[in-house]
Amino acid sequence: MKDKTINDRIKSILKRMDEKDYDGMIITQFNNIKYVSNYRPTSFAICLLKEDPVIFTTAMDKELASNTSLIEVKEFKSISELKEVFNKENLKKIAIEGNLPVSSYKKLCADKSKKENWELSVEDFLEKERMIKSNNEIKMIKKATDIAHKSFIELDIREKQENLITDWEIAYELGYLIRSNGASEESFETIVATGPNSSLPHATLENRELGDLILMDWGSKYNGYCSDTSRTMIDYNNEKQKEVFDIVLEAYNKAIKALKAEKAACEIDNVARSIIEDYGYGENFIHSTGHSLGLNIHETPSISKKDKTVLEKNMVVTIEPGIYLEGEFGVRIEDTIVVGKHKAEIIGNLPYEL
Amino acid sequence: MKDKTINDRIKSILKRMDEKDYDGMIITQFNNIKYVSNYRPTSFAICLLKEDPVIFTTAMDKELASNTSLIEVKEFKSISELKEVFNKENLKKIAIEGNLPVSSYKKLCADKSKKENWELSVEDFLEKERMIKSNNEIKMIKKATDIAHKSFIELDIREKQENLITDWEIAYELGYLIRSNGASEESFETIVATGPNSSLPHATLENRELGDLILMDWGSKYNGYCSDTSRTMIDYNNEKQKEVFDIVLEAYNKAIKALKAEKAACEIDNVARSIIEDYGYGENFIHSTGHSLGLNIHETPSISKKDKTVLEKNMVVTIEPGIYLEGEFGVRIEDTIVVGKHKAEIIGNLPYEL
Repeated sequence: MKDKTINDRIKSILKRMDEKDYDGMIITQFNNIKYVSNYRPTSFAICLLKEDPVIFTTAMDKELASNTSLIEVKEFKSISELKEVFNKENLKKIAIEGNLPVSSYKKLCADKSKKENWELSVEDFLEKERMIKSNNEIKMIKKATDIAHKSFIELDIREKQENLITDWEIAYELGYLIRSNGASEESFETIVATGPNSSLPHATLENRELGDLILMDWGSKYNGYCSDTSRTMIDYNNEKQKEVFDIVLEAYNKAIKALKAEKAACEIDNVARSIIEDYGYGENFIHSTGHSLGLNIHETPSISKKDKTVLEKNMVVTIEPGIYLEGEFGVRIEDTIVVGKHKAEIIGNLPYEL
Repeated sequence: MKDKTINDRIKSILKRMDEKDYDGMIITQFNNIKYVSNYRPTSFAICLLKEDPVIFTTAMDKELASNTSLIEVKEFKSISELKEVFNKENLKKIAIEGNLPVSSYKKLCADKSKKENWELSVEDFLEKERMIKSNNEIKMIKKATDIAHKSFIELDIREKQENLITDWEIAYELGYLIRSNGASEESFETIVATGPNSSLPHATLENRELGDLILMDWGSKYNGYCSDTSRTMIDYNNEKQKEVFDIVLEAYNKAIKALKAEKAACEIDNVARSIIEDYGYGENFIHSTGHSLGLNIHETPSISKKDKTVLEKNMVVTIEPGIYLEGEFGVRIEDTIVVGKHKAEIIGNLPYEL
C-alpha cells in the first residue's frame, strides 16, 4: 500500500462522508485529530472535518497546535461559535464519533427554536479508515515492538526472579529500558502478575515479590504507535502450569495459522476458543482472542466471538489466548500480527518458553 | 465532617436522585464506580444505582469485582439484558453521566416500538457528591502530596541541572522515588519542561537536557487519591525570569488569601487574573487558575472565569497561576489547597524559590 499523506487521509474520509451525504464531521478523540492533522491535543480540542477542515483548540494548546498541525487552527471560544459555523456554512448532515460524551452531544444538537436544523449521526469513518495500516504505520508498530522485545530481554526476568525483586520494580525497570531504547513511553500500564494475581487478566501492580509463575503484558510507543506482547514464565517442574501453558500455546499457534485476509474476525476467535474448550478450559478463557492496535492500544476490529468484520491485508491485530484459574494462576501468550493476503506475519521473534 | 461509608455515599446520592424523581442512575466512569462500591474496573463495567444497586462487569473483571465490591456484582451479558432490568423494575426516569459515550447513550434509549418508555437525563449527582471531601479523603490527598514533595526533594533538581540530565530521566527518577515512598503511581504524566518548551503548559517529555529554567508539574496517587504541585526553578540572574516569577508568586499568594468558603470559584480566578493583567501579562495567562481534584486529577468545580460555583468547606482545589512567553519560557507555581470556612490550608510546605 502506498503511504498516505495527511491530505490523502482527509480525502479518503471525505469520500466516505460524501457517499453518505455528510457535509461535515466533528472529531474530538485525540488520536483521531492526530490522524488527520498531525497535532495531538493535550487538552480539549474539536476538529471540524470538511473540504477546508479546521481545528479549534484551547488557548493553552494553541502554540503546540500551530507548530504541529497541518490543517488550520483557531482558538476555541464556545460551542455557540461552532454552531454558527454550522449555520454559516449550511452544514445539514454532520457525523460525530461514537464516544463523543452525551453532554457535548446535547450541546451540539440543533435547537429548533433557533431555526437550527442540522442532524448529528454517529459514524465510524475514522475507525474504518484507521483499520488498514500503511507501510509506514506498520514500520512504526514494528519499531515499537522491537524496542519492547529488546528491553524485555535486557530486563532478564529469570535473574530478577531469583533475586526477589517486586512486581512494580520490574515494571519500572522495563519502563526505563524502553525509554532508553528510544520509545516515548509504555503503550499501556505494564502488567507484571505473579502467583494467584496472574489469574486477573488486568492485574495491577501490588508490591509482590516474583513467585514461581510470572505473567507479563507490556508494550512501548514509538512515534505514537503501540506494541503489545505477553509472555508467561512458568515453573517447568509444575505439571499443571506446563499443561495449561501448552494448551494456550497450541491455541495461539493455530489461531495465527488461521489468520489471513478474507477470514472473519470471529472465525479466528473460534479457532483459539475451540481448542481451549476441547481441553475443558472454555470457562477459563474469559476475554477475546485479540484486538487491533495502532495509535490506540485497542482499535477495531476485535478478534472476538461477536465481531464479524472480514479481515483485510495490513490490519494489525494481537492474538492473545489465555487460561485463568481463579486463586491459582493464569497463562497468556500474545504477539502483534500483521494480517497478510495468504498468511499472518508475527512481529518479532521473542521465544515463548522463557 | 464525619466520614462517610460507601453506604452513606449511596444513601446521599439516592437522596439527590429522589429529590428529582429518578428511579435509577447508570454509572460507567471507573472512579464513580469505585466511589460507590470500592471496586475500580479495569475494563468496561456498568453500575445501576438504585435502592439495591448492582454492578455488571465483564467476565474478565469478575474475580476482581467480587473481591473488592461492596455492592452486588453480576456478569454483563448485553445491553438488552440491562434494558430488561429497566423494564422489570419499572424504572421510568434514569440519570446518566455527562461523559457517557453517545453510542452507548443511543443503545440505552428506550425503543418506543418495543413499548419501552424510560427517559434518560444527564445529571451530575456524582460530581456534586464528590465535591466535598471527607476527612479521610483529605488525609489521602495530604499523604499523596507528602510523598510527592518528599520525592521531589530527594530528586535534588538543582544537582541534576548541573549534571546535564535530560527531562525524561528526571521524570522517570521522580516516578521511581514516589513509588519507593509508597505511592502507587503518578497522578498524571510528570511535566519537566525546560527552556522554550516551558511555554507549553502541557509540555511533553522530549529528551532535552535541563536548561537554565525548569518548570515541573507532578503528583502522586495514594489509595486512589491524587496530589498536584508545580514549581519553576528559574535562573535568579535572569531579570526577566525573576520579574515573571515574582508576578506569578504574587498572583498565587493573593488567590490563596482570597480562597475560602462562600466565595465563588470565578472570584478567585479573578483575583489571580487581575494581578497578572495589571502587570501586562493577561494574554500570557492562558489557562484557569485551578481545578478541584480527588480520585480524578480534574474534578469540579474549576477555579475559572466561567465557574460560578460557590466554594464550600472541605473542597480541595489547586491554585496554579502561570505566565507563558511563547518561544522564551513559562513560569507556573501550584499547590493543592483545602478550602476552609475562614481561610485556605495549603497542603505541604514545599518552598517556592528553589
